[in-house]
Amino acid sequence: MGPSPQLIFDTVNAYQRSAAIKAAIELDIFTGIAEGAETSAELAQKCNASERGVRILCDYLTVAGFLNKQDGRYKLTEDSAVFLNRRSPAYMGSVVDFLQSPMLMEAFKDMTTTVRTGTTIMPDEGTVSAENPIWIKFARSMAPMMMMPAQVMAQIVEIDPNKKVKVLDIAAGHGMYGIALAQRHPNVEVVALDWPGVLEVAKENAQKMGVADRFSTRPGSAFDVEYGNDYDIVLLTNFLHHFDPPTCETLLKKVYGALASDGRAVTVEFVPNEDRVTPSMSAGFSLIMLASTPSGDAYTFSEFQRMFEHAGFKRSELHQLAPAPAQLIISYK
Amino acid sequence: MGPSPQLIFDTVNAYQRSAAIKAAIELDIFTGIAEGAETSAELAQKCNASERGVRILCDYLTVAGFLNKQDGRYKLTEDSAVFLNRRSPAYMGSVVDFLQSPMLMEAFKDMTTTVRTGTTIMPDEGTVSAENPIWIKFARSMAPMMMMPAQVMAQIVEIDPNKKVKVLDIAAGHGMYGIALAQRHPNVEVVALDWPGVLEVAKENAQKMGVADRFSTRPGSAFDVEYGNDYDIVLLTNFLHHFDPPTCETLLKKVYGALASDGRAVTVEFVPNEDRVTPSMSAGFSLIMLASTPSGDAYTFSEFQRMFEHAGFKRSELHQLAPAPAQLIISYK
Repeated sequence: MGPSPQLIFDTVNAYQRSAAIKAAIELDIFTGIAEGAETSAELAQKCNASERGVRILCDYLTVAGFLNKQDGRYKLTEDSAVFLNRRSPAYMGSVVDFLQSPMLMEAFKDMTTTVRTGTTIMPDEGTVSAENPIWIKFARSMAPMMMMPAQVMAQIVEIDPNKKVKVLDIAAGHGMYGIALAQRHPNVEVVALDWPGVLEVAKENAQKMGVADRFSTRPGSAFDVEYGNDYDIVLLTNFLHHFDPPTCETLLKKVYGALASDGRAVTVEFVPNEDRVTPSMSAGFSLIMLASTPSGDAYTFSEFQRMFEHAGFKRSELHQLAPAPAQLIISYK
Repeated sequence: MGPSPQLIFDTVNAYQRSAAIKAAIELDIFTGIAEGAETSAELAQKCNASERGVRILCDYLTVAGFLNKQDGRYKLTEDSAVFLNRRSPAYMGSVVDFLQSPMLMEAFKDMTTTVRTGTTIMPDEGTVSAENPIWIKFARSMAPMMMMPAQVMAQIVEIDPNKKVKVLDIAAGHGMYGIALAQRHPNVEVVALDWPGVLEVAKENAQKMGVADRFSTRPGSAFDVEYGNDYDIVLLTNFLHHFDPPTCETLLKKVYGALASDGRAVTVEFVPNEDRVTPSMSAGFSLIMLASTPSGDAYTFSEFQRMFEHAGFKRSELHQLAPAPAQLIISYK
């Protein structure tokens, strides 16, 4: 084979892939194909776009693995049919709203400076600044992507069916993790904590999922607001990665204090292996934290173990959330 | 396996890969590793960057396939060693200067509108506007990437060693194609045509490559300037894709008129197969033309055949430039 510049070329041009999938989602190309518009002419009419534009975009989407093409007709792949057809219950087109939000893309504008300084180029504290509106967008757009890990989490976390179980969901966002626990266990009551604007989204979701009567909220910053006490479970889902270890430990001490004596902290995170380069999605996540926060990271299990231990926890266990590409840590008081 | 959101997530976030490789090239990470700075601490010092930033970037580059990591030490892959170490003769780090130039990235800012309208969102005529300075950047930065296809082209095109061979290189850019022919055949004389600013780069290259005495220039637009006549070969390298077929045919008639009676037009292009979705690099190239030109495209061989035929050419042949991911068309007067 010999050396090839293919990967370099692909990677230098990768921003074009991001632009193409965004356009395809915004134009609702996948839904159009699902509904039978399979040629570029039919799709152009259905999606109100030029045939030339649709033809070139759909050929590109085929090259990129999102469509199959046969005799000039485009067909959805299995992934596209499940996740990109707007009529599918697992539709996740909205993830582009968050993952390609102007604020987040701006954070990647000058990675050279970011790597030189070792911190975000964003003003204030990047995405973790107080009441940053990006988290309302996150709550609205990322819920479909969190549905699967939330359900797998709810299967793994054991709940005593014979008593009321109090759950505190810190930085709840869309609220899907607490909601998934409440849906599975009728004796679970959830207190969701987040900025007020974000909690509106979580409340809507609790309503939709039929658990609103066991879902209450506590507005404010996880670092400042009173948690209450005697929780059986405190959920920390995709939150700790925003901060450095000392800040995490400060928060975990507060969590420890809010737990009942047999309570557990349940952490969902992208946890890379100790080599920090596998599995790919958890390991690659670290770059997003470098770009968008002052000192966040994707921590390894041993790093989490140490933080929980310093905060007083007895022991921590690592679980996989497969097929979702994330990990779960259960830490015992 | 079942459906997975992995490809969607990867593609929505692909712009981050582009940002990461750019930073790595600008910080000269690959050269640093080649010179023995293999830990994040050593590299941080060598590249004048923060250790935290370098560690996260290098882990990400490992996930992306540009590095290998063992026991905390980073090593170059074969591709990185050949193409991304600044001391390598095949170094092509400069390609980011063109492929991620602000003008080109701007053209991908709103692909939804581009697909709706079927043409570039850039003002004027996009990248093909008169004297657009992007082509000086192209000439300076893309030469290393064109070295290999230029040399393969020069092997394929047969040259009569017993007479003076006049070559016209239209929109010569860096000039590498004409230069490669002149290097291989001492009886080849090249006339390079392009905007004056671009020709300065081509002249520098001809000088460096030792063929300056058989290299002359003709400044101006390929559509307006006088070509002269009796050329044995007219080179059309990565030029026709910027225009629609009628515009190409107008140009090809002019090329036909400038050729000797047994002359050949030699076209280097990304030529997708008739299905337009293979091979991936040639097929994917079409999107760049959609985004950055009024009506350019990656044409199939049958489309090129038709254009050359309409311009008067007798017949055209398709050749592969493998291992370079491009194609060659020889058209006979």
